[in-house]
Amino acid sequence: MLTLIELVGIFFFAVSGSLMAARRGFDMLGSAFLGGVTGLGGGVVRDLILNQSPATFAHPVYFLPPVLAALCVYAFTPAVQKLHRLVQIFDAAGLGLFCMTGTMKALENDVNPVTAVLLGVITGVGGGMLRDVISNVTPDLFNPRDVYALPAILGATATAFAWHFDVLNIAVGTGIAGLTFVLRLASIRFGWSVPLAAGHWHRQPNIPNHGDGPRRNF
Amino acid sequence: MLTLIELVGIFFFAVSGSLMAARRGFDMLGSAFLGGVTGLGGGVVRDLILNQSPATFAHPVYFLPPVLAALCVYAFTPAVQKLHRLVQIFDAAGLGLFCMTGTMKALENDVNPVTAVLLGVITGVGGGMLRDVISNVTPDLFNPRDVYALPAILGATATAFAWHFDVLNIAVGTGIAGLTFVLRLASIRFGWSVPLAAGHWHRQPNIPNHGDGPRRNF
Amino acid sequence: MLTLIELVGIFFFAVSGSLMAARRGFDMLGSAFLGGVTGLGGGVVRDLILNQSPATFAHPVYFLPPVLAALCVYAFTPAVQKLHRLVQIFDAAGLGLFCMTGTMKALENDVNPVTAVLLGVITGVGGGMLRDVISNVTPDLFNPRDVYALPAILGATATAFAWHFDVLNIAVGTGIAGLTFVLRLASIRFGWSVPLAAGHWHRQPNIPNHGDGPRRNF
Repeated sequence: MLTLIELVGIFFFAVSGSLMAARRGFDMLGSAFLGGVTGLGGGVVRDLILNQSPATFAHPVYFLPPVLAALCVYAFTPAVQKLHRLVQIFDAAGLGLFCMTGTMKALENDVNPVTAVLLGVITGVGGGMLRDVISNVTPDLFNPRDVYALPAILGATATAFAWHFDVLNIAVGTGIAGLTFVLRLASIRFGWSVPLAAGHWHRQPNIPNHGDGPRRNF
Repeated sequence: MLTLIELVGIFFFAVSGSLMAARRGFDMLGSAFLGGVTGLGGGVVRDLILNQSPATFAHPVYFLPPVLAALCVYAFTPAVQKLHRLVQIFDAAGLGLFCMTGTMKALENDVNPVTAVLLGVITGVGGGMLRDVISNVTPDLFNPRDVYALPAILGATATAFAWHFDVLNIAVGTGIAGLTFVLRLASIRFGWSVPLAAGHWHRQPNIPNHGDGPRRNF
Repeated sequence: MLTLIELVGIFFFAVSGSLMAARRGFDMLGSAFLGGVTGLGGGVVRDLILNQSPATFAHPVYFLPPVLAALCVYAFTPAVQKLHRLVQIFDAAGLGLFCMTGTMKALENDVNPVTAVLLGVITGVGGGMLRDVISNVTPDLFNPRDVYALPAILGATATAFAWHFDVLNIAVGTGIAGLTFVLRLASIRFGWSVPLAAGHWHRQPNIPNHGDGPRRNF
């Protein structure tokens, strides 16, 4: 059951990776690879830091969602782009699930709570960051107008508290993942933003960035 | 013997890293570093995922080819660039060798066949991808007009099948590496291409990408 | 005592990460994250290669300097920018310290001296490289007009020699870190440079690079 939800979460993360590949003019194999990195990368980084062999590589089934995502994007590119809102909703569900399960996995490995929260957040947001770094675009994670990391931090922190007070069960875990999901959707719906890194630069005019063109000329 | 071939493969991968450093206006030390990442990076990522200390760091001899490559590119830049075709041929030989040995090393560590193929491919193509990501250019691996990953996938898959049916010996391994090598050269010779990630975008005009200028102004 | 110096070194590395976040228009959370990557990334990569759980994640105290750095940059952005020279001085101190302690940690894990030197250099310069790669700018490490890697290589080599001849104690270690620090500052003061990767391209006119705009338009 949890594995099924996980696979669905990986699939929707992978769709965002394959859409990036489409937007940047990459090929089909790059699309599957980028989808895999987006869907599985956060968990792999977490497991490497926990000094474990990444769980992803233990079962071939985890590689199925990225392949499916690449095929879907290939077959229905315009439709998938129109379903942007739907992808965002499922991506938010994946974020909620992964930051909760990532924190749990870290806590099960006896790390300190601060590290567990950080590893939970990395599990949730790491794949998307790797997607952007590999695609040679600036990570959307740092976009002050897109509140993505904050719900993950809150969800991971709530998980660590529930674990500490020994009240983490399926119901509480589902509640935390749901809360993260709702917070993420609310941030999109109401246009929340995070303060800039530079407190005094708010009024500086934006300079166009030529680095992230929509399409790559090979 | 195998180590010698490996060192030659690392050297030619490293040449492509040092040529990238030359093209981007990096310094000598960056050239050696980028050569090392290109030649050794794929194997290091494979070993990290296998939760082993990277084999590369066990013998200082592995660091010799990148240093030699950086010196060659420094001393004979125009000549090395004219030998572009020769570099491609040796790079193809390295690709054939590394995707075969990478898959074998993964299988020796008792991973499932799908993961072994993936790790074999990563051993072959990972170094070049890291080279491009670190140099801040879009990975050439995703270029639909340059068929690079496909021969590696076929070579790694053939290795896994040969292993499964217990027929993998030196002759078969050499044959698989040779087949990968020939496929890669054929793809260059005949201009093969891989379908785009976006199936319906074929006719969209290319927009020039300003992100990957030939030379960096520090 | 050593931990205190280490925390100060991490803090000043992190300041350079948070300043990059400010320059690129990232948000506060991205600033803390990028500061953490800059301050801690080199050591994490070293520990992953040594096949150990990264020491950074064992104590929450290591995450304090990046948070403080992000707050400082947020509160006093123009002042921190004016203190550019001061940041460089402390960054040089961090470089001297980390390349020495990184080499020591590698040698304590029984790696060969060449690998130990390389891991020491990675400890010193890896965080800054990760900062640039994640921020989608060309790594400043490769800038021929900014001699950054060379003092680290010399410091790490001196540490390995002192270890080999069994004369590495607190005084010698401090001396080596101090020497690295002085070399780095001298390279800034006297405008030293490293030869280009391409030996014959010295006179080619620089082509402006559009890839690294000062500010990202999300």
